[in-house]
Amino acid sequence: MNTNNHYDNLQDSYLFARVGQKVKEYKAQNPGAQVISLGIGDVTQPLAPAVIDALHSAVSEMGYAESFRGYGEYQGCDFLQEAICGYYASKNVMLQPDEVFISDGAKSDLGNILDIFASDNTVWIPDPVYPVYVDTNIMAGRPILFMDGNAGNGFLPLPDNSTHADIIYLCSPNNPTGAAYTSEQLRQWVDYAQRHDAVILFDSAYEAFVQDDSLPTSIFQIDGARECAIEFCSLSKTAGFTGTRCGYTVIPRALVRGGKSLNKLWLRRQTTKFNGVPYIIQRGAAAVFTPEGQQQVRTQIAYYMQNAKTLSDTLAALGIWYTGGLNSPYIWLKCPNDMPSWDFFDALLNQASIVGTPGEGFGKNGAGYFRLTAFGSRENTLTAAERLRTFIKNTL
Amino acid sequence: MNTNNHYDNLQDSYLFARVGQKVKEYKAQNPGAQVISLGIGDVTQPLAPAVIDALHSAVSEMGYAESFRGYGEYQGCDFLQEAICGYYASKNVMLQPDEVFISDGAKSDLGNILDIFASDNTVWIPDPVYPVYVDTNIMAGRPILFMDGNAGNGFLPLPDNSTHADIIYLCSPNNPTGAAYTSEQLRQWVDYAQRHDAVILFDSAYEAFVQDDSLPTSIFQIDGARECAIEFCSLSKTAGFTGTRCGYTVIPRALVRGGKSLNKLWLRRQTTKFNGVPYIIQRGAAAVFTPEGQQQVRTQIAYYMQNAKTLSDTLAALGIWYTGGLNSPYIWLKCPNDMPSWDFFDALLNQASIVGTPGEGFGKNGAGYFRLTAFGSRENTLTAAERLRTFIKNTL
Repeated sequence: MNTNNHYDNLQDSYLFARVGQKVKEYKAQNPGAQVISLGIGDVTQPLAPAVIDALHSAVSEMGYAESFRGYGEYQGCDFLQEAICGYYASKNVMLQPDEVFISDGAKSDLGNILDIFASDNTVWIPDPVYPVYVDTNIMAGRPILFMDGNAGNGFLPLPDNSTHADIIYLCSPNNPTGAAYTSEQLRQWVDYAQRHDAVILFDSAYEAFVQDDSLPTSIFQIDGARECAIEFCSLSKTAGFTGTRCGYTVIPRALVRGGKSLNKLWLRRQTTKFNGVPYIIQRGAAAVFTPEGQQQVRTQIAYYMQNAKTLSDTLAALGIWYTGGLNSPYIWLKCPNDMPSWDFFDALLNQASIVGTPGEGFGKNGAGYFRLTAFGSRENTLTAAERLRTFIKNTL
Repeated sequence: MNTNNHYDNLQDSYLFARVGQKVKEYKAQNPGAQVISLGIGDVTQPLAPAVIDALHSAVSEMGYAESFRGYGEYQGCDFLQEAICGYYASKNVMLQPDEVFISDGAKSDLGNILDIFASDNTVWIPDPVYPVYVDTNIMAGRPILFMDGNAGNGFLPLPDNSTHADIIYLCSPNNPTGAAYTSEQLRQWVDYAQRHDAVILFDSAYEAFVQDDSLPTSIFQIDGARECAIEFCSLSKTAGFTGTRCGYTVIPRALVRGGKSLNKLWLRRQTTKFNGVPYIIQRGAAAVFTPEGQQQVRTQIAYYMQNAKTLSDTLAALGIWYTGGLNSPYIWLKCPNDMPSWDFFDALLNQASIVGTPGEGFGKNGAGYFRLTAFGSRENTLTAAERLRTFIKNTL
């Protein structure tokens, strides 16, 4: 009996677990402190009324034999697949319902999708980025290459044709940097993938935060992407589903590698290792895509984007370099006075009772950078901005 | 770019997909037929009132900022882990909450657990059995051995120490045969696992259907099992959660292989590739374990067990060999006149409008056998029993 020895190559603890531990210790030592979390990207606004109504209604259905729902379709309920196709149509991306797989969140699918690829594929991952891309590939023992994000390229690395990769991760708007690729930049990635027979795993979890109409919100807005990309999206941030769990993965029928349809391979994987998302939750998710639901979640997003503006205006006034915040709920700042990220984390926690996320938790290029989120309440965000001003002015 | 070529070794389609296709075609050709499904093990009774109340209450919580829940603990909510520990305590199995992982169903965890094992481990799988055990290992390219279940051993194969395996699957009460191991028989498996440094993956999804108090309902009722077993359970059949999705996986702290805690390895896997079960659903699941919820689900189980008795009495009266039905919602019968399973499936569908599941869908030893489930409504089950009597008497 051997366990999977690739796990030995993982770092000790998942980023947010370490952050959580430090916060727990601080609170234990400072029971009176009013800690404000702008750390883990969790939302604070409740589910929208249209979603709550749909959830109640679905719960009631489950209480009567006539309307009770047992096993659903592995790929998701028709009504939700169709609602998502409608949402994509509004972006001028035409999909068939069977190109949409309902998931319990982008994280699960981003990890599990690797099941359908050979374990010797080379993956190419931005640095800094959401740590799950790296860890899931370490677990499978795949060779990993990194592409450098830095202030020079605005944390938006572009392809280098002298490097060969089979699987490419892109996240735009990016977590943690908030930077968003333009259509022309994504075009370069699609060209690269086509030339190298690669597949792009495109994480669009933050697409709903894009304010600039000229920026793409789906990779399928780029010609040719249907032949080389899979898109992962989530309602976690769009509609406050972090604890409600629903997302979707789009695998176009046109995506074929080695003569095999990746859509069919993923369907086979899901029918074997998954039994679908709760019916109740899928009803709640479908309400997000109704006109009423869209209006309500857009209002929530506007609320968070006002927080983003408060934080980025504060940083600008203090002369601190940052990116993000304009088309993303994340603000990525350079730690003042060239402080290391974890030192800045500790100082901010201990002196201003603010929790952020150290940049190096997202990769080596994150060293010296720091992520703040706009997902706090308005009141907490205003207080945090004030504390940040005082902390920077008095301490540094 | 290569896809996972182990998928080439999978059979064409998942058993229930093929059944579904045949039923779809029959209904299209016979629009007036009242088809009764005793095929896929899906339940028909609605969620219990205590569960519905808890779900409504949790939905309401999600609508207010003060009670809204975002990301939960990866391993599950404390209140649900503790409720499950209480349930195990009633079976004289004492667990710590961190030995319990809340899942979206046993199927997901039974597939995903393989991530933490080396890909060269040899697995030993009963035949016939739930097809997911085989398919998930084919996908990973693991060597598979089969243990034969047959009328001779009552479809309860026992270990043979001359065979070495690293991972052993047991399902008791068994799907599809309904046969349930005694404590003495499970004791032999625990001894085998200890001697061979193997791990038993114990699927107890049907434990709530055991009527005979002398039979074990958890492998942890066997001494030594904590050092060699993982148990997977589900509320799908216990409480009608097939479309609501919640289960749990128990990995004792004492389970160590190669110096590594399997509990910790699985936690690492889940924190990286999973984000927990919806808060709303976990509240509904917790209600199953309240005294009121237990009373209500026990009533539902009694309802289904009455169906099982109707079906097994019918078979007995017709002189057809069967097992199961006593401690399980499944009845496993020998096809009359030595008919092949798929032929019997077609005949039963076309001549009696009853859908069952061909035994060979569960493995080669299932050839010539057939599974019926007790999960229909009372009315449909009585009608099906009558049709079955007529069909067997007139046709065969």
